[in-house]
Amino acid sequence: MFRKILIANRGEIALRVIRACREMGIRTIIAHSEADRDSLPVRMADEHICIGPGPSGKSYLNIPNIISAALISGAEAIHPGYGFLSENPSFAQICADVNLTFIGPSATAMAIMGDKVSAREAMAAAGLPMLPGTRVLRTLAEAREAAREIGFPLMLKAAAGGGGRGIRLVNSPEEFERVFTLAQNEVREAFRDDGLYLERYLPRARHIEIQVLVDHHGNGVHLGERNCSCQRRNQKVLEESPSPLLPPELRQEIGMKAIRAVQQIGYTNAGTLEFLLDDENRYYFMEMNTRLQVEHPVTEMVTSVDLVKEQIRIAAGEPLQLKQENIQFRGHAIECRITAEDAEADFRPQTGVVEKYLPPGGPGVRVDSHLYAGYSVPPHYDSLLAKLIVWAEDRDAAIARMQRALDEFVIEGLPTTIPFHQRLLRHQVFIRGEAYTRFLQEEAASLGI
Amino acid sequence: MFRKILIANRGEIALRVIRACREMGIRTIIAHSEADRDSLPVRMADEHICIGPGPSGKSYLNIPNIISAALISGAEAIHPGYGFLSENPSFAQICADVNLTFIGPSATAMAIMGDKVSAREAMAAAGLPMLPGTRVLRTLAEAREAAREIGFPLMLKAAAGGGGRGIRLVNSPEEFERVFTLAQNEVREAFRDDGLYLERYLPRARHIEIQVLVDHHGNGVHLGERNCSCQRRNQKVLEESPSPLLPPELRQEIGMKAIRAVQQIGYTNAGTLEFLLDDENRYYFMEMNTRLQVEHPVTEMVTSVDLVKEQIRIAAGEPLQLKQENIQFRGHAIECRITAEDAEADFRPQTGVVEKYLPPGGPGVRVDSHLYAGYSVPPHYDSLLAKLIVWAEDRDAAIARMQRALDEFVIEGLPTTIPFHQRLLRHQVFIRGEAYTRFLQEEAASLGI
Repeated sequence: MFRKILIANRGEIALRVIRACREMGIRTIIAHSEADRDSLPVRMADEHICIGPGPSGKSYLNIPNIISAALISGAEAIHPGYGFLSENPSFAQICADVNLTFIGPSATAMAIMGDKVSAREAMAAAGLPMLPGTRVLRTLAEAREAAREIGFPLMLKAAAGGGGRGIRLVNSPEEFERVFTLAQNEVREAFRDDGLYLERYLPRARHIEIQVLVDHHGNGVHLGERNCSCQRRNQKVLEESPSPLLPPELRQEIGMKAIRAVQQIGYTNAGTLEFLLDDENRYYFMEMNTRLQVEHPVTEMVTSVDLVKEQIRIAAGEPLQLKQENIQFRGHAIECRITAEDAEADFRPQTGVVEKYLPPGGPGVRVDSHLYAGYSVPPHYDSLLAKLIVWAEDRDAAIARMQRALDEFVIEGLPTTIPFHQRLLRHQVFIRGEAYTRFLQEEAASLGI
Repeated sequence: MFRKILIANRGEIALRVIRACREMGIRTIIAHSEADRDSLPVRMADEHICIGPGPSGKSYLNIPNIISAALISGAEAIHPGYGFLSENPSFAQICADVNLTFIGPSATAMAIMGDKVSAREAMAAAGLPMLPGTRVLRTLAEAREAAREIGFPLMLKAAAGGGGRGIRLVNSPEEFERVFTLAQNEVREAFRDDGLYLERYLPRARHIEIQVLVDHHGNGVHLGERNCSCQRRNQKVLEESPSPLLPPELRQEIGMKAIRAVQQIGYTNAGTLEFLLDDENRYYFMEMNTRLQVEHPVTEMVTSVDLVKEQIRIAAGEPLQLKQENIQFRGHAIECRITAEDAEADFRPQTGVVEKYLPPGGPGVRVDSHLYAGYSVPPHYDSLLAKLIVWAEDRDAAIARMQRALDEFVIEGLPTTIPFHQRLLRHQVFIRGEAYTRFLQEEAASLGI
């Protein structure tokens, strides 16, 4: 086992890794920015080293400084957390080149899954179902034919580019005739490439994702699914496990397929495969996150598996001790991402000083947060303040527990999304377990956002 | 189900009951003293009513005021917590007389178990093993005969009185001859009654206790045991579940006997039967606590059962939904009682203002505490500040987690027992799972107390 791990991250996830390491008897060194000098993870790590100024590009994304910090301090492995360098194949490769263990998959596996097109190809080849879509289309005649095959409504998307340009929801053949040429002109101007493709549109899709753990000895397990359908502009705001309305046989089916698929590309360590689920429980692979996810605690609460400790053991070459048949799914867990945003003002990020801080307690409540009274939220990073996670014997009890935990939570000094989450937890669509990916958008008024 | 419950308690346990009620949709009113006006449970309850000045006798033990508060506020039930009126049969009877549901056993069952002699008689009649002991002895001749039967070492105790007067550990027949008459003279002077009795002495006894839940419909379950062998002057300082070195068959045997025994005296609601366990795993009934216990969270962590919610459901007349065969014991839980005491100065109680407060977080950590930054610890009550409870997959992992959680815990402004608990969690006798009831006393030097 490693004697010392360098943590190349900040905030609550740095604290999460420090906690796992302490419990495993592993020393930690945190590589931090100047802006995070007074942060809780810096105080709690065994050692700390400043790797640059506040802006991420100069510190948390500064590969030479991070690698130097690890080598100078005698760390044997690097935990990248999520975000920053966690999905950067070059960083993983450089670690390997200098004999530092990157706690995550190999650079090769990460690169395959990091590119959306190659990931879809690899996972389709490995037997995962894909959302019906077309190759690149350039004429109205071939597009019309392809559209009839896919059926309406459908999504018209630009083959090149990104950022939402050229994406259109099309409801009927008549509309398609009108829209195709318009869209083609638009993307030609934007990307100098008029290629478009069509994809089936799922009007009430749910986002579910499967957590897998795969070791270097051919062993793999899945830890069930998380439902992350409560999203705002593709940012998750609440996650839960298990997914409401998902039959246990289907969990097992998707889970086993997910393990086999990632093993086929030589993937190791923790990973998450994201799927869309339609209202008839058909599932379609979207993409894979080749790292620990923000929402991993809900899986930990229902399976009693410590994902960070498992990541570290796998990276150290240990064979997985978990067996699929021994993994029990117990009760229900929900996580709320409390951020420094003003939900009533289009979720504008906020900075400021935390004047009072009192996390909720009592049974079934977990708080992962780097806050303390007096902490100044720096402007350089994402706005996550705290993850509030609850567990209870069933979904209704978990909702009631989350409501009371949100009511207890004291963060004063800057606006947070606690009031928004209080409304979300009392919204009938959520309570009925029917949230879908466009739910927050379509119900914005009734959610007060 | 009740619509409103009055809480006749304070501190962390009042908060514990408020949390359960909120999650069940039950309104709470807390009956509090003047000294607790600014306390967290008063802020968090739906309603609050002042029942008298700081000293307990004038507030938390003031039966007329508490009953009036319940009747005026329209509460239908009273939760007594632990301590104060929780084991007072007259209070339970008065509640019944004015049609308030006392959340606990009937006054009759409480009275039987509240008196040590009648409790031992009832439980012996119900088949629980008792520590071998004698009737009251008055002559050296009969005592000598009885001592031979019990065997050495043995305890010589006064039949009357209490407070440790006349209690002697006797190691041999020769010592017995010398000591018996001396002790007889001493207790005659102290209590005007020279009656003595003998009890087997267990040199390395462990304290284990069985949690039971019994409803009004003939259903009962046990929730396994807690080991509370880390005691200082009969005050528990750390509890865990399961008990190290206890075979699962024995847990089941003691548990099933405990359910049957309390059902024979018509006991209902939650209760705990305390046993001494010798080094060959023979167990002896000591006494019963007819209420929720301070250390109930360790049982909640390993069984996933919410004991306070179960208490409320049973008191409301609902049949127990739990079945013994469905209760699973999972992993290991440890609780540390963090008190405002100076462990290095004979655990002298401390008062003062909590200047900084930051409870530990992350996976497997639960904090039950009424503290907040700025809270002034009043002088009138017991010195419990916080219960820190951890869960992990096995005992070693739970110990490692408790160590890191203690290291994280920030309470500034007054001395606490956190440093003492840090030493206890690193003591080899505790780590090996061999703590016995006199362990803290005998190892005081190596524990720094």
